[in-house]
Amino acid sequence: MLKQLTFKAFTEITRTATISVGQHGGRAKCLQRLIRLDMPVPTTVALSFETVRRIAQGKMTDVAAILDFFGEAPLVSVRPSAEGTDWGGPGAILNIGMTDRRHAVMVQRRGEDAANAIYLRFIHTYAVQVAHLDAELFPRVPRPGRSDVAEALRIFESETDEPFPQHPAEQLAGVLRSMARAWEGTSARLLRKARGAPEEAGLGLVVQRMALGVGADESGAGVMQFVDPTTGRGQITGRYMSQAQGRDALALKHAALYLTRDPRGPSLEELAPEIFDRLVGLGDLARARLREEMQIEFVIQEGELAVIDAVRVPRTARANVEIVVALARDRIIPREEALLRVPPRSLNELMHWQVDPAAPRAVLAGGIAASPGAAVGRLVFSSTRAQALAAQGEACILVKRETSPDDVRGMHAARGVLTAKGGMSSHAAVIARGLGVPCVVGAGRIAIDRRAREMRLADGRILREGEVVTLDGSAGEVLEGAAEMLEPSLGEAFQTLLGWADEIRDIGVRVNADTPEDARIARTFRAEGIGLCRTEHMFFDDDRLTVMREMIFADAPEDRADALRQLLPMQREDFTRLFEIMEGLPVCIRLFDPPLHEFLPSDRQGVVDLANALGRPVSDVQARIDSMTEFNPMLGLRGVRLGITVPEIYEMQVQAIFEAVIALGEAGTQVVPEIMLPLVSAQREVEILQSRIEQVAARLRAGRDAAVSYRLGVMVETPRAALKAHAIAELCAFMSFGTNDLTQMTYGLSRDDAGRFMQTYVHQGVFREDPFHVLDKEGVGELLRIGAERGRRANGRIVLSICGEHGGTADSIAFARDCGFDYVSCSPFRVPVARLAAAHAVLARGS
Amino acid sequence: MLKQLTFKAFTEITRTATISVGQHGGRAKCLQRLIRLDMPVPTTVALSFETVRRIAQGKMTDVAAILDFFGEAPLVSVRPSAEGTDWGGPGAILNIGMTDRRHAVMVQRRGEDAANAIYLRFIHTYAVQVAHLDAELFPRVPRPGRSDVAEALRIFESETDEPFPQHPAEQLAGVLRSMARAWEGTSARLLRKARGAPEEAGLGLVVQRMALGVGADESGAGVMQFVDPTTGRGQITGRYMSQAQGRDALALKHAALYLTRDPRGPSLEELAPEIFDRLVGLGDLARARLREEMQIEFVIQEGELAVIDAVRVPRTARANVEIVVALARDRIIPREEALLRVPPRSLNELMHWQVDPAAPRAVLAGGIAASPGAAVGRLVFSSTRAQALAAQGEACILVKRETSPDDVRGMHAARGVLTAKGGMSSHAAVIARGLGVPCVVGAGRIAIDRRAREMRLADGRILREGEVVTLDGSAGEVLEGAAEMLEPSLGEAFQTLLGWADEIRDIGVRVNADTPEDARIARTFRAEGIGLCRTEHMFFDDDRLTVMREMIFADAPEDRADALRQLLPMQREDFTRLFEIMEGLPVCIRLFDPPLHEFLPSDRQGVVDLANALGRPVSDVQARIDSMTEFNPMLGLRGVRLGITVPEIYEMQVQAIFEAVIALGEAGTQVVPEIMLPLVSAQREVEILQSRIEQVAARLRAGRDAAVSYRLGVMVETPRAALKAHAIAELCAFMSFGTNDLTQMTYGLSRDDAGRFMQTYVHQGVFREDPFHVLDKEGVGELLRIGAERGRRANGRIVLSICGEHGGTADSIAFARDCGFDYVSCSPFRVPVARLAAAHAVLARGS
Repeated sequence: MLKQLTFKAFTEITRTATISVGQHGGRAKCLQRLIRLDMPVPTTVALSFETVRRIAQGKMTDVAAILDFFGEAPLVSVRPSAEGTDWGGPGAILNIGMTDRRHAVMVQRRGEDAANAIYLRFIHTYAVQVAHLDAELFPRVPRPGRSDVAEALRIFESETDEPFPQHPAEQLAGVLRSMARAWEGTSARLLRKARGAPEEAGLGLVVQRMALGVGADESGAGVMQFVDPTTGRGQITGRYMSQAQGRDALALKHAALYLTRDPRGPSLEELAPEIFDRLVGLGDLARARLREEMQIEFVIQEGELAVIDAVRVPRTARANVEIVVALARDRIIPREEALLRVPPRSLNELMHWQVDPAAPRAVLAGGIAASPGAAVGRLVFSSTRAQALAAQGEACILVKRETSPDDVRGMHAARGVLTAKGGMSSHAAVIARGLGVPCVVGAGRIAIDRRAREMRLADGRILREGEVVTLDGSAGEVLEGAAEMLEPSLGEAFQTLLGWADEIRDIGVRVNADTPEDARIARTFRAEGIGLCRTEHMFFDDDRLTVMREMIFADAPEDRADALRQLLPMQREDFTRLFEIMEGLPVCIRLFDPPLHEFLPSDRQGVVDLANALGRPVSDVQARIDSMTEFNPMLGLRGVRLGITVPEIYEMQVQAIFEAVIALGEAGTQVVPEIMLPLVSAQREVEILQSRIEQVAARLRAGRDAAVSYRLGVMVETPRAALKAHAIAELCAFMSFGTNDLTQMTYGLSRDDAGRFMQTYVHQGVFREDPFHVLDKEGVGELLRIGAERGRRANGRIVLSICGEHGGTADSIAFARDCGFDYVSCSPFRVPVARLAAAHAVLARGS
Repeated sequence: MLKQLTFKAFTEITRTATISVGQHGGRAKCLQRLIRLDMPVPTTVALSFETVRRIAQGKMTDVAAILDFFGEAPLVSVRPSAEGTDWGGPGAILNIGMTDRRHAVMVQRRGEDAANAIYLRFIHTYAVQVAHLDAELFPRVPRPGRSDVAEALRIFESETDEPFPQHPAEQLAGVLRSMARAWEGTSARLLRKARGAPEEAGLGLVVQRMALGVGADESGAGVMQFVDPTTGRGQITGRYMSQAQGRDALALKHAALYLTRDPRGPSLEELAPEIFDRLVGLGDLARARLREEMQIEFVIQEGELAVIDAVRVPRTARANVEIVVALARDRIIPREEALLRVPPRSLNELMHWQVDPAAPRAVLAGGIAASPGAAVGRLVFSSTRAQALAAQGEACILVKRETSPDDVRGMHAARGVLTAKGGMSSHAAVIARGLGVPCVVGAGRIAIDRRAREMRLADGRILREGEVVTLDGSAGEVLEGAAEMLEPSLGEAFQTLLGWADEIRDIGVRVNADTPEDARIARTFRAEGIGLCRTEHMFFDDDRLTVMREMIFADAPEDRADALRQLLPMQREDFTRLFEIMEGLPVCIRLFDPPLHEFLPSDRQGVVDLANALGRPVSDVQARIDSMTEFNPMLGLRGVRLGITVPEIYEMQVQAIFEAVIALGEAGTQVVPEIMLPLVSAQREVEILQSRIEQVAARLRAGRDAAVSYRLGVMVETPRAALKAHAIAELCAFMSFGTNDLTQMTYGLSRDDAGRFMQTYVHQGVFREDPFHVLDKEGVGELLRIGAERGRRANGRIVLSICGEHGGTADSIAFARDCGFDYVSCSPFRVPVARLAAAHAVLARGS
């Protein structure tokens, strides 16, 4: 009862009224701020979430009181005011209160055209939004002349079997009820959920006295903002239209005026210089006091300016960076706030080509947005074709069922990659992100015919090699033809913002870099070292592959060592170049990890070629390949298991690392390499390899002045390694947690195979998120926490890091920081995201 | 200094002397026990471990003191006395003290033959064991006549460049030194390590006055025991030989006497009835007082009986059970001790055919002993052949590179299975153990040519289809031809012993049973229910396979449901039979688990046949098969993931279960089935399936009087499920830990692929044991402990169990008991082992 007694159905928005975002929504609060800045805002009342909820439940009908507040025969508008300004809501409804009688009066006072336009707009909006009639029933553009109003009233009556309501209170009640109920509808719920709103978010409404925009003298409506919404640079943009209401000026640009003087046509600046100047002044005021670039919606009512609404300028990610850096430079907001106003992931848009959000999209196929950015190119269905086309300077999009290490060069040559299978952490996705190539994976509804060089879409349409498409890796879509694109922008504002982030963050950011090119990109993104250099990619070049295969087919350890000796100078050169590029920054080299069968041919011709090259019978070669096949290669003979059972590979790699270090040392550059052992599950594995590596070091130290020092560490990828971290840490200088494999093993879920059902799983809410995309803090996270704690307890000086794909995501960085990790390592194009996210983590939780 | 002062080089073994197993070894202690029983044991002194260690280090040379103890010109023997009686040790050396002079005296006193025999035995033994000469240098059997002694002395001198030692003290010093050093040799160390001795186990020695066994009157030596060493049944066995020493009577049986009256020849009972009677009396005494069946080594020296040694009767596992049950029945030992004297694993020998340990073995190939027992049969290289031969009543051994679910019926038809790949938990191994079929896996050195129907051994030899071999699954070997076999023995003693075990144990034992046959075997082994019924095996019958494939190729859920509807009656019948056999004991049914592609053909012809059957183009069928292929099927779309994304399968299975329960209920048998969800990793998976299962139950309840109740549970196989056990347990009546998969995921190690390197890994000590064989208590065990604790805390009434392959091993049962699990479940033939091991766990740790 108490609640009902104290319940207040509406509140006039004044300087001192109690209006809060949490009870009345963002629009109501913003209007109050405008009023406090003495802007000419028409009388407005706010209906709280609670009021709107009652309206939806049919518990409140006394809307007459609201209308009474506005005095005699008012015209009002109603706009939604949700807590989050981007949570959606029903469209605005203007001119409530228009009735036949009022129309007649207005014809007298403002002329027939104005009265008709105002009444017609209301009838149409009411018919569609409140009575749910089909918009098509009404003529698109009102024709001048009274007959349109009569016609609209007639259509309304014949469709609803009711005359158009002639009581303003009845009209307003209908509007409020329909808006309140629309908010509870399924599509509105889904929309706001997608934008991060809580399940039970409330809706407020604001009811405002109309500033009409039609009538005698200069009347009209317009929208003004002070930055370019695409670039974020300072520039007055917007439109104004005489004898118009709402956002007509933006919708009907051909009939509208420019704001500033413009050679292309008349402008508000010329038409009404005083009002224009006042608007510019209001813009400055809003920016300084609301601490944001605002878009102002205004009405000129018979020469008088009214500000009816203002919203944060909608903008691209790039514009946002530009805007917040400018606000911080102008000391309107502190740098910390500037950082917090940029979502880390949004930086992706700045680093890659994007499909222009304003351009039309014809979607051909959809999948998982696996690597951001967009690209236009011709379809190709093999890596060889991609390389051939790229060599001719032709942009292409590589389409495959799935990719394998053989495809890395083809992926590099392509502008974009599309696969039918796989998830966020499939080979294609991981490599594409590493290369910075836009990529869509798991497009399960396309059927690829590699031989015919074509693919069939879900609708049966066939796309052939050479056809031009646009691959949007940020949206996870394939678009028809060449879409309009926005170029990447690593401008000065971007660098400035990240510089501020670096000053604040307290967790390191390294890069996962396998090639000199990766390393160079990483340096431009100011990574603090290489956290993961996967050496296996170095063995896929044609000449090296041959040697690898000889090694695999060698029968005796000496023959293996002989074969590997040919690779030694190449590996040494690989490492030398990385060390040179990184100029003394730490470089963590993971020793050879994949199963050897990945280096063997999988098709008949490849086997025949290999048999010829080796001078062995095809049946022998095939038998050896068969004997090496694994049921679950992920869980097979790879990583340290290979290192221990085929010692020659690691010995060659370690020798190459040390020789590179010695040569650089003699040339005056001191490097202390970090050597990382993959797929460890037992302490003894580390012990054995530690002693073998030390033997190689000792051999190279002998007879040389040069000291060969190094740091040995372990990649924690198996649950067991995390559980036994205390034992492992005793032998290590560092432990780096490979969250990809750790996630696979903790869930018992292969990233390559998860694509087939992950979308269903996330859609049905079985998993809240794809754990390969968003770190599973409960399960995998507990193992990270256990591993870090036990490792740290056993070895206080151990360096802890995360080097899986999650390393670059904001939530895992915050988590890693909480767990006391020293740094994260991520793919080159995620380094800026990680730097910003790391600063966010500090700002969000305190240091 | 103190230590040296108190050091006592040797101790005479008397009733009251301080002799301990831990300082003087088992033989010394046993001799003391015989003396305490007033047995006629010749004077004996014991050399402690410490003394022998000093001798080995060359720190003790004063052996004269030992000889002095025995009086003037003694002849003595030296025998090893290790702490464990089966830890090996150097062979006994007799007649120490024989010299030319002593020989001459003895010729006078006992005749030339006796003197020669005694001296020659000593020279030979000394030459081989102390001087390390080749035994072949000496004539095999001494010919009568003095010239043999002279010849032996000559050979010794010419080979060693030293005359045969003529000082007894020098002889004894040489014997002691060589025995002490032999104990430190590599082969002795390896041998005793294999038998479970600690690295630094000590050796004691006993020096005993010789009872010669040669001379005037009745003299000789023999061995007597009172049970049959193969069956364990009471029966005097052994041999006696006149004018002999040591164990000659056993070595030269043709020249020896029977002990009891025997139609085949003369006996000790007839020859020396008083001595025979006395020996029988001593045997009874030993059994009663030493609480063990002893083998007595005796000498008759000129009519006088001497007991020179006694050891526990060496025996088969079957004999051991018979013996300990008899001892307990005679109240010589308590039942608890009888139980502890039977190693649980040794029961395997009783349940399966065994290769006679006494028979010769020609080993053709070796691998991992994956399923115990032995079988003789003809080689076949395909499951089809195995079934065909079995249909003709022909025993066969199935040889494959690896097995797949397609082979289950072939494996069932075969008497034994041999695979070139795989480890303890490969498909072949798991299924073979379940079927009770002897199996050797991972025989990496054989090369199988399936088309030629032959295999090549490591030595290049080829074995073709039809050749007869013996597969020894207990030893992990393939033997040439048909080896001599011992039949299984589930006699009364076996049942009695297990009955006692059941009275003591406090953890349940259920069975992993998929078929009515499994269930029947399990009931004969008194399993307390089915802990794991894997339903997927039910889908591989030809007619069901066809339906499964139709289901897989169905495009719409309704078509899938239609196909599955054909399987419903068959599944219902499967479950009905299991429930009937188990007669109200709990039955835990795991819903469908494997990936669907396991049901698709893998060869070209199979694809063509399937395409014809489905009336679809081959290319379509092939494309569908390709699209379902997984990189890591273990971690793919299976278990609950399939249950959630293809709901029709579980719905059919659950309906079949409930319909079976209802029908039985109407017939008066109440069954409450347990339904288990495989491969869970998130609580929400359980929630979704719980609600779907409840829907099926509700549908079947509607309109029936019959209550349909059931218990829902989860198989904990992923590390994440163990970590989130608290959340999962809230929804469950039980959680069963699948240690196979949990081990795979915790280590990141596929059981099917581990075979390639596991032997190397265990051999190099990287893993102390194969974790698929012996539960990894540190890593996997911690997850079990975490899961059990969290599950129990969230749901105090939850039933916890282990149902992986480890369920049947003694150490995991002890571990499971410690962690508070309610029961273990294991393959049928492991049930008795588990029952006994569970009793051991109680006895070893207290309740």
